[in-house]
Amino acid sequence: MTLKPVRVGICGLGTVGGGTFNVLTRNAEDIARRAGRPIVIEQVGARRANPDCDTTGINVTEDIFEVARNPDIDVLVELIGGYDVARELVMTAIEHGKHVVTANKALIAVYGNEIFQAAHDKGVIVAFEAAVAGGIPVIKSLREGLGANRIQWLAGIINGTGNYILTHMRDEGRAFEDVLAEAQALGYAESDPTFDVEGIDAAHKLTILASIAYGVPLQFDKAYTEGIARITADDVEQADNLGYIIKHLGISKRTDKGLELRVHPTLIPKERLLASVHGVKNAIAVMGDAVGPTLYYGAGAGAEPTASAVVADLLDVARDITTAHHYRVPYLAFSGIVEGDESLPIMPMEDIVTAYYLRLLAVDRPGVLARVATILSEQGVSIEAIIQKEAIEGELVPIILLTHRTREKNMNEVIRQLESLADIAGPVTRIRVESLDEQE
Amino acid sequence: MTLKPVRVGICGLGTVGGGTFNVLTRNAEDIARRAGRPIVIEQVGARRANPDCDTTGINVTEDIFEVARNPDIDVLVELIGGYDVARELVMTAIEHGKHVVTANKALIAVYGNEIFQAAHDKGVIVAFEAAVAGGIPVIKSLREGLGANRIQWLAGIINGTGNYILTHMRDEGRAFEDVLAEAQALGYAESDPTFDVEGIDAAHKLTILASIAYGVPLQFDKAYTEGIARITADDVEQADNLGYIIKHLGISKRTDKGLELRVHPTLIPKERLLASVHGVKNAIAVMGDAVGPTLYYGAGAGAEPTASAVVADLLDVARDITTAHHYRVPYLAFSGIVEGDESLPIMPMEDIVTAYYLRLLAVDRPGVLARVATILSEQGVSIEAIIQKEAIEGELVPIILLTHRTREKNMNEVIRQLESLADIAGPVTRIRVESLDEQE
Repeated sequence: MTLKPVRVGICGLGTVGGGTFNVLTRNAEDIARRAGRPIVIEQVGARRANPDCDTTGINVTEDIFEVARNPDIDVLVELIGGYDVARELVMTAIEHGKHVVTANKALIAVYGNEIFQAAHDKGVIVAFEAAVAGGIPVIKSLREGLGANRIQWLAGIINGTGNYILTHMRDEGRAFEDVLAEAQALGYAESDPTFDVEGIDAAHKLTILASIAYGVPLQFDKAYTEGIARITADDVEQADNLGYIIKHLGISKRTDKGLELRVHPTLIPKERLLASVHGVKNAIAVMGDAVGPTLYYGAGAGAEPTASAVVADLLDVARDITTAHHYRVPYLAFSGIVEGDESLPIMPMEDIVTAYYLRLLAVDRPGVLARVATILSEQGVSIEAIIQKEAIEGELVPIILLTHRTREKNMNEVIRQLESLADIAGPVTRIRVESLDEQE
Repeated sequence: MTLKPVRVGICGLGTVGGGTFNVLTRNAEDIARRAGRPIVIEQVGARRANPDCDTTGINVTEDIFEVARNPDIDVLVELIGGYDVARELVMTAIEHGKHVVTANKALIAVYGNEIFQAAHDKGVIVAFEAAVAGGIPVIKSLREGLGANRIQWLAGIINGTGNYILTHMRDEGRAFEDVLAEAQALGYAESDPTFDVEGIDAAHKLTILASIAYGVPLQFDKAYTEGIARITADDVEQADNLGYIIKHLGISKRTDKGLELRVHPTLIPKERLLASVHGVKNAIAVMGDAVGPTLYYGAGAGAEPTASAVVADLLDVARDITTAHHYRVPYLAFSGIVEGDESLPIMPMEDIVTAYYLRLLAVDRPGVLARVATILSEQGVSIEAIIQKEAIEGELVPIILLTHRTREKNMNEVIRQLESLADIAGPVTRIRVESLDEQE
C-alpha cells in the first residue's frame, strides 16, 4: 500500500528551521519508513537563506503567508518565533485548512486557547512537542504515555540558560553576574537575558505542561514567576552544606484548593535525579497516581534537538492526517478543554504550601535568635534547622533557617516582621524548598 | 460526538492484572475524557480472585480462552505471563480479530515476530509498552517521540532486582549473596532469581528496545547475556575509586559492522545520570543523531506502574481502533519489519569494541607488572590506568587495570594469556567499561 507524501511548508529557516530542514532531508528514508509515507518539504518561507541548508530545488519564498495559503501544503511548520506575526501566520494556515506544527512556547502559552479553538472548528491538528524542553518527548509522554494517571505534580528544569548559570555558580563558586556574562559570550544566553533568567520562558513551558497534565485551559497570566538573579554564591554554598542544590524549577501541583503554577529558584535534595541535571540540559519529573515518579531528560534547545521534536510531530500528523478529528489525541490531552474548564483554578501564590530557606543578617547581640524564632513560631512556622555563622561585616551574623512546610502567606508575614526588626540588617533572602518525594 | 465504549477483556488478575483493573476503574472518568470514549472492563479471565479488586458486576470466567473468543471483547489484555499459554492465548485472540495489549516481555522477545505477522495479516494492534521498563513510556518515546532520529545507541537499567542488589552492595559494602538474600526476603527478588540476576529478563527487554530503535526483527537468541553474581564488594569499591559505578546494563549500539546487543555488568562514569539511578528504579538512556542524549526514568515493575503502561496502550487502541491498519504506528517502529530485514546483523560478542576493567591477583615478584603490560601491548590493548595494591593473602597482590577501547576478541586473548601466567593466581575478573558519552 503506497500512501501519498505529506507536503510540508517550513516557515523560518533560522536555528530550528534549519535543523528541521536538515533532519527531514538527512533522515528522509527512515522517516518515510516510520510514517509509512514520505514527508517532503514542499516549500520554505524565509527572508534569509541558512548557510547550513541546501535548498536547491526547493520552492523558497520570502512571503511566509504564501506558505499558509499554498494549496499544495498539508502542514505548515511555524518556526519564526515571537508572538504577533506567528499568531497571524498560524491562524491563516488554520483558516486554509492546514495542520500546524510549531516550536513556539510563547505563542502556545499565550494564544493557545484561541488557536486550539480555531483548529478544533476546522478539524486540523496543531502539534507543539518542540515548544517544551526541546527534543525531550515530554508532551507525548504526559499526554499519551501517562494517560492512565491522575498527575499529582510535575517539576522541571525547563530553561537551559538558567541551569547553565546555576551549574557553574555551584561548581566554581562564582557570582551570578559573572557566569551570566560568560554564558552570553558563549552564546548560551541572549544579550537581553530577561526571558531566561527571570523565568518567563520557563513559565511559558510550565503553563503548557500543566494544561496537559491536569486538563485545564492555558493560563499563563496566572503563573508566578521569580528569577535567579538574586541567588548568591553564598546561598549555593549554604544549600550544599544542608544537603540541597539550587535549581530554577517550574513546578505545578494538584492540591485540594486547585493548581499551583510557579517558577522560582528551589532547593531540592541532592539525591533527587533532577539535582544531577547539569549545564544546559533540561529534565522534567512527573508524579502520577499509578506510575509514581518518572523523569524525562535531554537537550532543551538547539537546532537538531528541537528539530527532533518538530519532526516527531510531523510523523504524528502523517499518521493522523486522514483520521477523523475526534479520534485524534486532544490538543490539551483531555477532550472538551478548549471550551474551558474551571474546576481546577490556579491558586494565588500566597496559598501555596512549601518549605523555605531563609538567609538573614543579624546584629551580633544576645537574644536575636530567640526573637527570630518567636516570629516564626507566632506564624505557625516550625523550624527544621537553624545555623548561626561567624560574624562578618563587622558585627553582622548570617543566620540560615530551614523551615518545615507552611503557607506562603504566613511566610510573607514572617519575612515582613523579620525585616522590621532592628536586629536584622537588609532584606531577608527567601528560597523555596521542595523535597520532590513520592508523598508530596 | 459520542463514540462507543472500547470493551476490554483482562486475562490474569495477579499483580499487574489487579493493578490494571484498579487503575481502569479508579481513573475511568479521566481515561474516558482522554480517549474520547469510555474504556470498560467487559470480562475478566482468571483462575483466582484478587483480594485487591472488587469485581462485583463484572463477568469473570476461569477460562481465559473464553475471553479470546468472546465476540463482545474488542481488546484482550494478556497479563498471565509465561511463554506457551500466553502465546496460544494471544494467537487465539488475534485469530478472532481482537487487538492485544500485553506486558509480557518474554513472549514478545521470543515470539514477537510471529505474533506481529499474524496481527499484521488480521489488521489488529498488538501493544506492549508495559513489556519494557514498567511504567516508563520508553516504547512510545523510542517509536514515536524520537522518530526523527537515527538511534546511535541505547543503554538501560532495565531490571529492578539487579539494580537493587548493586545499589545496596555499593552503599553498604556488602556481598552479592548477602544482598540477594535480603532482596528475596523483601519480595524484590524471586526465590529462583536466575531470570533477574543472570540478565535474561534484561535481555528480553533489550531485544525489544533494539528492534524498535533500529528497525530490525526481534532476535533474542543473539543477545549476549552475563549476570552480576560474580561482582564482588571489592570490584564495587575499586570502581568507585576510579570514578565509576557498576550497573547491570542492557546495551545496544549501531556500528559499521552491525548491532551490538548485550547485557552485562558495566562500569559507567559516576557523573552520568544513569549512575544516579538507584534501588529498584529503571532508566534508559537513548542517543539519537538529531536529539543527542536523552533519558527516561521511573518504576520498572510493580502493580500500578505496569498498569499505567497497559492502560496507555489501551488509550492508543481506543484512538486507533477505527483507523486503517497502515496508518497505525508499526509494531517495531518501521514498516516492513515483520517480513524481516537483515541489513543490520547482530554482531558476535567477540567483535564488539569497548573498554575494560580487569582485576587480577599476582604473585608479589619483580617483573609481574611488566609481563602483564607486555601481554596487553602485544594484543594492541592500551592501558588507561594500572593500580597495584598492597599484598593480601600472603604474597598475592591485587592489580586493577583500566584499558582503552579494544575489540572483545583481543581482550579474550589477553585474559587467556594472563590466566596462563605462572605469576597470576586464579581467574581474571573482567568488567566492561562504557563512557556513555555523546561521541560513542
